Amino acid sequence: MTHSRFDKLNASLRASSLDAVILNPGPTLTHLTGMRFHLMERPVVLMFAKDQIPAIVLPELELQKVAALPYKLQVFVYPENPSEWEDIFRRAAQALGLDGKRIGVEPRQLRLLEFRYAKAGAPEADYPDASDVLAGLRLRKDRTEVEAMRGAVKIAQAALEAMIPLIKIGMAERELAAELVMQLLRHGSEPELPFAPIVSGGPNGANPHASPGDRKLQAGDLLVIDWGATYDGYISDLTRTFAVGNVEEEYQKIHKIVQEANAAGRAAAKPGVPCANVDKAAREVIENAGYGIYFTHRTGHGIGMEAHEDPYMRGDNMQLLEPGMAFTVEPGIYLPERNGVRIEDNVVITETGADVLSDMPREMRMVG
Amino acid sequence: MTHSRFDKLNASLRASSLDAVILNPGPTLTHLTGMRFHLMERPVVLMFAKDQIPAIVLPELELQKVAALPYKLQVFVYPENPSEWEDIFRRAAQALGLDGKRIGVEPRQLRLLEFRYAKAGAPEADYPDASDVLAGLRLRKDRTEVEAMRGAVKIAQAALEAMIPLIKIGMAERELAAELVMQLLRHGSEPELPFAPIVSGGPNGANPHASPGDRKLQAGDLLVIDWGATYDGYISDLTRTFAVGNVEEEYQKIHKIVQEANAAGRAAAKPGVPCANVDKAAREVIENAGYGIYFTHRTGHGIGMEAHEDPYMRGDNMQLLEPGMAFTVEPGIYLPERNGVRIEDNVVITETGADVLSDMPREMRMVG
Repeated sequence: MTHSRFDKLNASLRASSLDAVILNPGPTLTHLTGMRFHLMERPVVLMFAKDQIPAIVLPELELQKVAALPYKLQVFVYPENPSEWEDIFRRAAQALGLDGKRIGVEPRQLRLLEFRYAKAGAPEADYPDASDVLAGLRLRKDRTEVEAMRGAVKIAQAALEAMIPLIKIGMAERELAAELVMQLLRHGSEPELPFAPIVSGGPNGANPHASPGDRKLQAGDLLVIDWGATYDGYISDLTRTFAVGNVEEEYQKIHKIVQEANAAGRAAAKPGVPCANVDKAAREVIENAGYGIYFTHRTGHGIGMEAHEDPYMRGDNMQLLEPGMAFTVEPGIYLPERNGVRIEDNVVITETGADVLSDMPREMRMVG
Repeated sequence: MTHSRFDKLNASLRASSLDAVILNPGPTLTHLTGMRFHLMERPVVLMFAKDQIPAIVLPELELQKVAALPYKLQVFVYPENPSEWEDIFRRAAQALGLDGKRIGVEPRQLRLLEFRYAKAGAPEADYPDASDVLAGLRLRKDRTEVEAMRGAVKIAQAALEAMIPLIKIGMAERELAAELVMQLLRHGSEPELPFAPIVSGGPNGANPHASPGDRKLQAGDLLVIDWGATYDGYISDLTRTFAVGNVEEEYQKIHKIVQEANAAGRAAAKPGVPCANVDKAAREVIENAGYGIYFTHRTGHGIGMEAHEDPYMRGDNMQLLEPGMAFTVEPGIYLPERNGVRIEDNVVITETGADVLSDMPREMRMVG
C-alpha cells in the first residue's frame, strides 16, 4: 500500500511544478509512510524528491520506527544535542540534491522548527505552498477509508446515546465532557480523539468553539454537543443540540430552522456540483428565516484522518464535489449571550449522490 | 493576573533585543492572555509589541472569546473567505508598526501558516527565535501552578492504581490504553490529556515512543506505561514499568538499574546546579552497569502547561536549576527487539532542594 502511495505522490509531483515536498509529523506523513510521530521539540522531517528514494531525518530515539518498513527510505539520525542537528539535515537535503529546487510545504502543518532546519540544508530553494497537491492525495477516500469513517460515526453515536440519560440539570459542562469521552472510549474509539468534545450550555453555546467549563446546566438552556470518535485512524465529527427542560419558543424555532438548513445542505451534496452549493443551500434556509447574520461560519469542512481538511463547504469555493470526498454539514445559529444551535452530520459523496454516515435523530430532544 | 503577565513580557522584551513577539494558539498565548484556541486552518495570531496594546487577529467565529477580557486588546477580525485574510493581517501589523522590527517567534509552535500571514504584514522585519525569552515567562512555576501540577500527579497515580488490577495477560495494548484514559477521566483529569498514554509490552517497550497497538500482553513481558493527567491546565507525566508474570533475570536487573538511575537523577536535582547534572547522575548509574548504549534519550524535560517544555535535562545543558522549575526524571534502558524499562517522576525545584510530586512505588510490580 505504501509503495503505491509513493507512486501517487510521484505522479502528482510530475504533474505539478514541484521538485519535492517536505513533511513533518501529521496526517500526510502518516498517510504516505504509515508511520506516526508526535510533534515534539525534536524535528522529524520526511524529504520526498520526485522519483528518488525518500529521506527521513529523525532523532535516535525514534529509530525503531523505521526498522521494518516495507519500502526503501534513506534514514538520517541525529543525537540529543541540538547543535548537531543542522548538519544532519544538511546531509539529508544534499543526498536528495534539494538546494535550488522547488520544495512544496504544508503551511498548516509545518512549523518554523522543521522549516528552518530543512531550509538550512537547501537555503536557495523555493518553498511554495503545496497544500493542494498534498491534500489531493487524501481527498477522495477509498472504500476502506469510508468504512473506517463509518465505524467512527457509529462509535460516536452509540457513545452519545449512552450518555444522554446521564445528563442532568446542575452538571458542569466539564463533567459532561469527561463522561462523553469515557463513553467514546468504552464504545471503541481510539484513545486519540479527533478533538476534545465541545459541551456548551446556554450562552456558551453562542460561541461555536467554546471549551467546556464550570458552568452548570440550567433549565431553559440549549445544550450544544460537538463530538467525534477515531476508528482505524479515521474520524467522525458530529453535533446535536438538546433542550434542557423546556426552552423558550424562539429557541425551538431556531432549532427547527437549523434542522432544515442541515437537511438542505445534505440534499445539495452530490458529485459534479461546487462545494459552494452545499454552503448556499444551508445558508439560504437560515437567511430566509431572518437569522443570516447569526450563522457566522461556513457550512462544513472535509474530514478523514483530520477533523478539518479539504474540501471546505464555503460560499466562495467552486471546487467540484467528487465521489469519495467526505465532509461535514453543520449549519448553526448563534444568538450572542443567549444560546446557540448547531446540527452536524458526516457525508461522503458517491457516484450518484451522497452517503450520510450519521443518522442520529436531528429533532430537538429534551434532556435533564 | 493577565495584566501582570503582559508587564512581565514587556520587561523581558525591554531586556532583550526584540521589539515584539508573535504568537499562535498554544501554551504561551494561553498563559499570556488566558484565552484558548485550537490550531486550525484558520490562523489566529497575537501580536505583542513592546509597551503597546497587543493586537489579535482571529476569525469572526472566535469573536466571543475576546468579548469580556479584563485587559485591552486591539481586535482584528477576518471573515471566512481566505482571500481577505492577508489584508486584515496587514492592518494589524501596521497598527503596531511592526515592519522593519525584530519580531520574536516560537519555531516549535508557530506554523508557516501564521508566519506567512504575519510576514505579509511586516515583510521587512526580522523573525529571530524567541523561544528562550518566551519560555522564561513560564519557566519558574508559582505556587498555584505547582499545586495544579501536584493535582495532575495525584489524578494520574490514582488512575493507574485503579487500572493495575485490571491488567491481564492477553489484553491488547490498545485496550489497556483506553482503560487507562477512562480511569484518568474518572479520577478528574481534564478531557484534554497531556498526551495519549503509552502502553508498550515486550519488544514494543524497546521503542520509547511506541503507540499502543494490537499486540497482546504475554507472560514474561515487561510492560511500560507512560501516562499523565491534566488539572487546571497543568499536566503530569509519569512512567512505571511492570513485570507481566515472571520475567527473566536480566529484565529484573535492568529494572533495578533504572530505579537506581531515577533515584540518582532526583537526588541531583537542586537549585544552582546545571540541568546537565541531573542527566549525568542518572546516566552514570546506567553506564557503570554496562548499559549506557541502551539509554538513548536525555534524562528529562520541563513540564507545566506542556508535556515537553524548558528546561531540558541533557548532558550539554549548563542552564542552572532555579526554584519553581518543574521537570521529569525518566531514565530508561531499551534492549532492541526485546524489552524496555523506564521510570519517570515529576520534580519541582525548591529553595533548598527538590519536591518530588510523584510517589507511586517504583519497584517492579507484577501484573497479569
